[in-house]
Amino acid sequence: MEPMSDEILERLRVTPGGPADLAGRDPGWDGDDSIPRKKRKKAGRKLLADGIERLRDAQERLWAADSWSLLVIFQALDAAGKDSAIKHVLSGVNPQGFRVVSFKKPSARELDHDFLWRCVRELPSRGRIGIFNRSYYEEVLVVRVHPELLQHQKLPPGVVRNGPELWDERFESINDFERHLVRNGTRVVKFFLHLSPEEQRERFLDRLRRPDKHWKFSTSDLAERAHWDDYMAAYGAALTATSTEEAPWYVVPADHKWVTRARVVEVLCRQVEALDPDFPTVDAEERRRLAAARAVLEGEG
Amino acid sequence: MEPMSDEILERLRVTPGGPADLAGRDPGWDGDDSIPRKKRKKAGRKLLADGIERLRDAQERLWAADSWSLLVIFQALDAAGKDSAIKHVLSGVNPQGFRVVSFKKPSARELDHDFLWRCVRELPSRGRIGIFNRSYYEEVLVVRVHPELLQHQKLPPGVVRNGPELWDERFESINDFERHLVRNGTRVVKFFLHLSPEEQRERFLDRLRRPDKHWKFSTSDLAERAHWDDYMAAYGAALTATSTEEAPWYVVPADHKWVTRARVVEVLCRQVEALDPDFPTVDAEERRRLAAARAVLEGEG
Repeated sequence: MEPMSDEILERLRVTPGGPADLAGRDPGWDGDDSIPRKKRKKAGRKLLADGIERLRDAQERLWAADSWSLLVIFQALDAAGKDSAIKHVLSGVNPQGFRVVSFKKPSARELDHDFLWRCVRELPSRGRIGIFNRSYYEEVLVVRVHPELLQHQKLPPGVVRNGPELWDERFESINDFERHLVRNGTRVVKFFLHLSPEEQRERFLDRLRRPDKHWKFSTSDLAERAHWDDYMAAYGAALTATSTEEAPWYVVPADHKWVTRARVVEVLCRQVEALDPDFPTVDAEERRRLAAARAVLEGEG
Repeated sequence: MEPMSDEILERLRVTPGGPADLAGRDPGWDGDDSIPRKKRKKAGRKLLADGIERLRDAQERLWAADSWSLLVIFQALDAAGKDSAIKHVLSGVNPQGFRVVSFKKPSARELDHDFLWRCVRELPSRGRIGIFNRSYYEEVLVVRVHPELLQHQKLPPGVVRNGPELWDERFESINDFERHLVRNGTRVVKFFLHLSPEEQRERFLDRLRRPDKHWKFSTSDLAERAHWDDYMAAYGAALTATSTEEAPWYVVPADHKWVTRARVVEVLCRQVEALDPDFPTVDAEERRRLAAARAVLEGEG
């Protein structure tokens, strides 16, 4: 697999203002097929390993600069490999420098607030990477596919509008929110792991055939699979409406886990490096203070 | 003092899109001066007492409906009477139904997040009234008067713009945020308690003359008083930019505490009543269930 070029990066990104065009993207992409598959896979693994190192260094500078933070959102259908991508990609980063938050079904307390509230509470602080495994985007994805969930949200009469207007308002809230974050020091990057229905079937069967993987399968997964086309429509609308210059969406092919991981780590490295967080510079006076401190410590010897 | 008419209400409100015009408003207003002052004051106290009752009833319906919440923001210079207005106006409301949050100087942890973050965490949940004694508006008020405070905010290079653009961006963030809240079930109402410099001087002197009030005075209050005109300019700009149909500002005359309280309670009652939160209706089936429950309990006797 070839390293990430600007051109590949641009292909993965949903161009702000343009359509997400999920149907026109290949979840099974795994590089230039004039190169033998084995060689491509080996190159992909090397890209991941290098990326993990680069990300570790970039995060250390982010931490030292103590100014920017990075919010990384993962969204996907079941079995697309969100959990394993997060595990692999962050395997080199200082655990103090990042935090993964998984958002499940909202609690009663969370439903007593606006739909962004529970995620705001978990935002990364300066110098840190915050990973959201699912996010407020569920509000325009699963809730759009299952509008009956709106009934639990206790929205006031006159406010619930179960039509296109509701989703447009939510997209607007999300874009406003992310613009505010970026302006105030939290860069936002969003990944959709793009899986084919055929590969999902394989991964589900694998979970059902191997007793050590049974825990990963829930019968509701099969029920959700039946809504595949509705989910694709909801993802298409959401990615089209909310991919912005400040907070772009990247659609990463997910039928091959080694492709997913290599692409995700590269996009992340570029995002953090683009912030150019340098180790804080030390002025002349501070240098004198450090020299004095060093002299004191050396004098003890 | 006359009861609140629609006309008075409209005079107190900063018309969305129009100027706040603080210089054109009289902090010392205390009603129609063709009526003897004693009579006006008595009428004002009656308005407050009636308003407290009305607010208690309105809040009970809000609580039962469990759908809307109300966010009430108080901003003012020192000694304008925020604390005492909050105390009096809410004196009749069920303590379970509201919560007062005072925002002081941001902590190190709070400065590690965007400027709305610490307030989002304290938002009222459905059915409740949340009172913010100061708020995220401090970010465009005290921070604008003392731009050196921006240095503590650890904003990334390229993001801090210490010019009009920064304040415009913050106004936009605030308007976006409040629109999102209203759409999702939190009505927002904002009070500026409008005090004259002469009355502030009287109240400060009173605090300095009476030992039991010394604790209320800090020498920094005097330092802030020296920035009076800057504060008025910052308040004028903020109220002009952020008074919207969804989340209006009310400028309440604050030189007479009985005027302030009577006006605040009336605006609040109208806000909650406009939500028209009715006691939840019970359908035929639920009525049958309630009748059955009643029969069981009566049968025990």
